[in-house]
Amino acid sequence: MNSDTQQSIALETAQDLIFGKCVVLPAEEVSLSASLNRFAARPLAALEALPGYDQSLRDGFAIGEQVQGGGSSFEIIDEVAAGDTRKLTLASGEAIRIMTGGLVPDGTLRVVPNELCSVNGGRVHCVSFLQTSQKSFIHHKGRELAQGKLIVESGSAIRAEQLILLAGVGYKTVSVVRKPRVSFFCTGSELVIGGDEKLSGQKFSANAHLLHGLIELSGAKLQKQRTVRDDPDTVRETIRKLLSSHCDVIISTGGMGPGKFDLVEEAFLNMGGEVVYRSLQLRPGKSTLFGLLGKTLFFGMPGPPPAVHLLFNELIRPAILALQGARFCRPKSIQARLSESLYLPLHGLPRLKSGLLSFEDGECRVRPSTRVDVSNCYIHCSTAKRELKTGEQVIVHMTGSLPCFD
Amino acid sequence: MNSDTQQSIALETAQDLIFGKCVVLPAEEVSLSASLNRFAARPLAALEALPGYDQSLRDGFAIGEQVQGGGSSFEIIDEVAAGDTRKLTLASGEAIRIMTGGLVPDGTLRVVPNELCSVNGGRVHCVSFLQTSQKSFIHHKGRELAQGKLIVESGSAIRAEQLILLAGVGYKTVSVVRKPRVSFFCTGSELVIGGDEKLSGQKFSANAHLLHGLIELSGAKLQKQRTVRDDPDTVRETIRKLLSSHCDVIISTGGMGPGKFDLVEEAFLNMGGEVVYRSLQLRPGKSTLFGLLGKTLFFGMPGPPPAVHLLFNELIRPAILALQGARFCRPKSIQARLSESLYLPLHGLPRLKSGLLSFEDGECRVRPSTRVDVSNCYIHCSTAKRELKTGEQVIVHMTGSLPCFD
Repeated sequence: MNSDTQQSIALETAQDLIFGKCVVLPAEEVSLSASLNRFAARPLAALEALPGYDQSLRDGFAIGEQVQGGGSSFEIIDEVAAGDTRKLTLASGEAIRIMTGGLVPDGTLRVVPNELCSVNGGRVHCVSFLQTSQKSFIHHKGRELAQGKLIVESGSAIRAEQLILLAGVGYKTVSVVRKPRVSFFCTGSELVIGGDEKLSGQKFSANAHLLHGLIELSGAKLQKQRTVRDDPDTVRETIRKLLSSHCDVIISTGGMGPGKFDLVEEAFLNMGGEVVYRSLQLRPGKSTLFGLLGKTLFFGMPGPPPAVHLLFNELIRPAILALQGARFCRPKSIQARLSESLYLPLHGLPRLKSGLLSFEDGECRVRPSTRVDVSNCYIHCSTAKRELKTGEQVIVHMTGSLPCFD
Repeated sequence: MNSDTQQSIALETAQDLIFGKCVVLPAEEVSLSASLNRFAARPLAALEALPGYDQSLRDGFAIGEQVQGGGSSFEIIDEVAAGDTRKLTLASGEAIRIMTGGLVPDGTLRVVPNELCSVNGGRVHCVSFLQTSQKSFIHHKGRELAQGKLIVESGSAIRAEQLILLAGVGYKTVSVVRKPRVSFFCTGSELVIGGDEKLSGQKFSANAHLLHGLIELSGAKLQKQRTVRDDPDTVRETIRKLLSSHCDVIISTGGMGPGKFDLVEEAFLNMGGEVVYRSLQLRPGKSTLFGLLGKTLFFGMPGPPPAVHLLFNELIRPAILALQGARFCRPKSIQARLSESLYLPLHGLPRLKSGLLSFEDGECRVRPSTRVDVSNCYIHCSTAKRELKTGEQVIVHMTGSLPCFD
């Protein structure tokens, strides 16, 4: 244990140290349908041009060159439905009936929409269109994407617009980074375990339910979970079992800090864990540990569920993103104006206070959330002031959960 | 078919008509761990007070009344660990060592943190604390929630903060609305189906992959999917099969509008479908149908995937929320300032243009997204203008997908 690990460090430093230990996980091939919001393991480029052929944008007539003296009248020689794969050819003075999406025949100058044509016997007439419009109503091959053009960069999540393009150029599966496997255990002798009846002096664990939900919504895979008593042997055995389940991340709650006899840290060190830091300049969240057990990231978090919720947003979800090679891992940080003043206790540490962000008249506003509110952000409160006044600009960290603006 | 259903209607009217047909689905009991972001089927109130007992906020000493002449020195008579369920009693002049979270003994006036105590023999001394501080370091029973207090209203999604409270008061399972079951089929004779090789004149379907992803991310359950040719019998048979899978919503893509011979609408009517509307005053998305097949909601959408993406956000996700009894179902609509000007084609219909929303210096800004961008909103463009200038305030609809602000 060197002196660096004894120091309390700033949140941004902690994030950088965590990112430094995140090695991007191996790729796996998944169906395109399952790839939405997954992270591309390598750059995904257009396998072919999009569209792949010259296609009609309307139901109407593909017309060839006008014949000298033939005016705007054309002989209808065939019909092309969408999906018709014959490559037809138009000579001068000829027309072919064509459907939206149909393969445009060779020799086609333009497609004239039905509503601008009149058909008479075997001929189509389209005088006014040819006189007044320059439009071809042909969606030319490669107009949307040239073959080889980059669609998704490595380290980006695949979004709906990109999924549409990937499908169009023929991807059926894509290579994405495997989901991080996350296990956790909650410690606390005061916790009711399993179906036991609760006695006075005992509590139901909220952290197990909370972490279960947060891990699944973060895009990671929940591997194993345990709730255990504050007992050194049990904690050590729990860590050993979770490690053997081949997880990428282990999270613990409770058993941190001097009051808990450093229960988790001792077990962690006992198992050969390497401490990266053991204290944060942050409330809540001062007593947290981050380290490595072999290649597995280990987050020792405090017991109170609001602190677990906050640290999941600030440290663990960022790590889950970094393990997938994401280029932007920190919670999105924006400025907003306080719509209520905010009083802070004096204890010398920066604080993240849960808040409710809203957008009114084009402005970002935020207020601290009350005990019964749900929140959608954290308000960053520096140590400089005891009061942040209504109207002040503050920095807020958006949470990764679903938008919640109503 | 009455004259109302022939009319083209505004987007908001369409949403209202859809909500009018959404009957909240039955409740199901799920484990609390699986309840994050699910909608409560009934109000969830505190089953008991939180915390459930007077608990210590620090490791330290619970002290009784000072004995006349005894000063700030107390005799240590016992120890209470967290999870210790014995209800001890303190007499005057006595102290009990207590851990954070421990059950506070009867007769305790305050808890004095360890760092403010000195222990000598069997006695603890805490002079300066008693002189300088008023704090009790006791978290009193019911301080967070009184028994019976409402935690989640019916029609609200269960968020992390509420899950913490629900767990704390002893919920192990909660009653949430069952996930809507959604099936879809994509029509198009130009689509490559299954593992067939693509010929010139054919396209890969993007809609199947897109809808698969959007349905799962929306919180609904994807029931069945099909891709079929533009053939009336096949379409009818497909609708029949999807209906027999007991889904709450059926979506189709393609086969809409006069160009496609009203393929989907004819099959829909043929199966006894009741049309609610068949045209929207919106680009893209003019040719869309909404109706009922018995109790199943039916959305007939156009073929182009960007239109499907937009209509999913504006109509289908709102319906999926309404089926779960959500109080706010429309996409969240906010004001933002254009950071780039936007030119619109003239065709007399309101338009939703995909855009990229960002927050800079406390202001909401938006620009239209380009072909290769991902988007996180839709910019509402009325019919009044051909150009929206940089700096103008516009209305944007946020998309329900994950935040994407980088």
